[in-house]
Amino acid sequence: MSRKITVAGAQLGPIQKAEGRDEVVGRLVRLMEGAHRRGAEVVVFPELALTTFFPRWYEEDINNADHWYESALPSNATAPLFDAARRFNIGFHIGYGEIVHEPDEGGVQRKRHFNTAVYVHPTGEVVLKYRKVHLPGHRDFDPKRKVQHLEKRYFEVGNLGFPVVRAPVGQAGPVNIGMLICNDRRWPEAWRVLGLQQVELVMLGYNTPSTNQDAQGFEAHHLRVEHSHLSIRAGCYQNACFGVAVAKAGTEDGCELFGNSIIVNPQGQIMAEAVTWDDELIVADCDLEQCELGRNSIFNFAAHRRTEAYGRILEQTGSVAPDEWKPGDKPNG
Amino acid sequence: MSRKITVAGAQLGPIQKAEGRDEVVGRLVRLMEGAHRRGAEVVVFPELALTTFFPRWYEEDINNADHWYESALPSNATAPLFDAARRFNIGFHIGYGEIVHEPDEGGVQRKRHFNTAVYVHPTGEVVLKYRKVHLPGHRDFDPKRKVQHLEKRYFEVGNLGFPVVRAPVGQAGPVNIGMLICNDRRWPEAWRVLGLQQVELVMLGYNTPSTNQDAQGFEAHHLRVEHSHLSIRAGCYQNACFGVAVAKAGTEDGCELFGNSIIVNPQGQIMAEAVTWDDELIVADCDLEQCELGRNSIFNFAAHRRTEAYGRILEQTGSVAPDEWKPGDKPNG
Repeated sequence: MSRKITVAGAQLGPIQKAEGRDEVVGRLVRLMEGAHRRGAEVVVFPELALTTFFPRWYEEDINNADHWYESALPSNATAPLFDAARRFNIGFHIGYGEIVHEPDEGGVQRKRHFNTAVYVHPTGEVVLKYRKVHLPGHRDFDPKRKVQHLEKRYFEVGNLGFPVVRAPVGQAGPVNIGMLICNDRRWPEAWRVLGLQQVELVMLGYNTPSTNQDAQGFEAHHLRVEHSHLSIRAGCYQNACFGVAVAKAGTEDGCELFGNSIIVNPQGQIMAEAVTWDDELIVADCDLEQCELGRNSIFNFAAHRRTEAYGRILEQTGSVAPDEWKPGDKPNG
Repeated sequence: MSRKITVAGAQLGPIQKAEGRDEVVGRLVRLMEGAHRRGAEVVVFPELALTTFFPRWYEEDINNADHWYESALPSNATAPLFDAARRFNIGFHIGYGEIVHEPDEGGVQRKRHFNTAVYVHPTGEVVLKYRKVHLPGHRDFDPKRKVQHLEKRYFEVGNLGFPVVRAPVGQAGPVNIGMLICNDRRWPEAWRVLGLQQVELVMLGYNTPSTNQDAQGFEAHHLRVEHSHLSIRAGCYQNACFGVAVAKAGTEDGCELFGNSIIVNPQGQIMAEAVTWDDELIVADCDLEQCELGRNSIFNFAAHRRTEAYGRILEQTGSVAPDEWKPGDKPNG
């Protein structure tokens, strides 16, 4: 059986605060139709694809922000997307704010909020659900910032790990699929946990400001896109997988998000890149057999990884200062 | 105190099998003198910098290969390098085959072989020693290969972890220095263990063939340099450190090694790159304060890392196939 699939990234332009879900879902359906017309068997929408990037808006009581989240998927508002997937026989990935009633780590049933993504089979069944692990930003209102970035306020840390499943995608038969969300892409630990499960296709949505307010005067803004691409390309190369990384882009509520969505192969090459910061499709044919090369040679993990030397990765969360060496000391302090 | 240092990478052209250590050390001293003239306070020589890349030559009894290793550093042959370091007041990094008599993991004293690098203070004292952890290649003669790659035969896996020390380097005062060797650079685990020790300057030598015999017909040869740069740039960016990555290059014993040595900043930018595949210096001024930006914002590990989601990185060496999802299953299989 051929292991080729055609994948699409459906970049979104901005979603303004006032834009309703019905309008957004209309845009998603039009992009899905375009993806179908270009032969795609799966289409990847970005992180928080149904609303504006609401963590920039502060609410003292986060329950007042519940209208930004989905408590059911599909809902009346999102049903047309599921209908279109059935009609076009296309799987889709979408990110959204999730409200769920489930026990917390202490076993107490309560309302919980996550930054979530799902991969949906053309039948409408949810194949894979992931909740964002690496939440950037801050928890409390920061008076020094012109724009807030309250992901640590609005979302709990994802509690599903980095799951991978082998699931039917298009004509390729089963594909090992996994997900990351936005900031996760900068963390090689996240890619590696996927790679250790033989991931072949990583679906990844993001909303990334084109300037870094934490780094004024230090970080050149023109490097922001490059850092995103660098992390995704390294993640794909070092884990021998394809990546479909899709932005919400453009000026949203006065804040600029970069676009430059890409599809990357296991050699770390960019196969397709969005050139606008608006609704835009990118499409590529991915031969999943290419994942075998890295997995069986340079990145044959069983042959080459040395876990006995990696202890600090789990033993420490933060970094620690090294010992000091002074003249007269033995090597290595 | 300024935290600026001037660092040099001293790329080497080929060292043929017949070339003696005296001749090689003469080349190293000339490069060191050039580095001094260009204001460098530290110079980085490549992996196995004193000999040809001997793991391409098979010996049934590896003791017959002992002449490729150093059992003392400095030795009569390498003393001129240490003398030059004192004369120029310059620290240096060098890779070499190390023979050492020490207890093995079972406590038995014996002769052991490692692929080793040291950083040497201008006084001639060894500040930091590292033994290569990620050995590529194979252990036994492979009749399918035109050229052998017997690192797994000639070296034991390094047993010093990924050490970092804070040591005086040039005018910058103490600098957090660490090392990787060649194939280590492709492994984000290795970079992260250094980053978790607040490494600021990673010294890294390599000998990398410009074609991959394991991947004929799959991996485009023109991507070999790009993969090296991609891994180094991602490692520097994601761990907020400078990297000095230095090749032995050119056609050695009929085998082509790529050059393209680079100095990279914590933004993942290439500050200097070698343009020949021969003896060549690259030099850059590195402001170590730039390491603070990443370490205190995007890559503030204490604030953002989620070790509870990273378990597989230590629990598994090799990858495992994911569970299969079939229509009718719950999400995540």
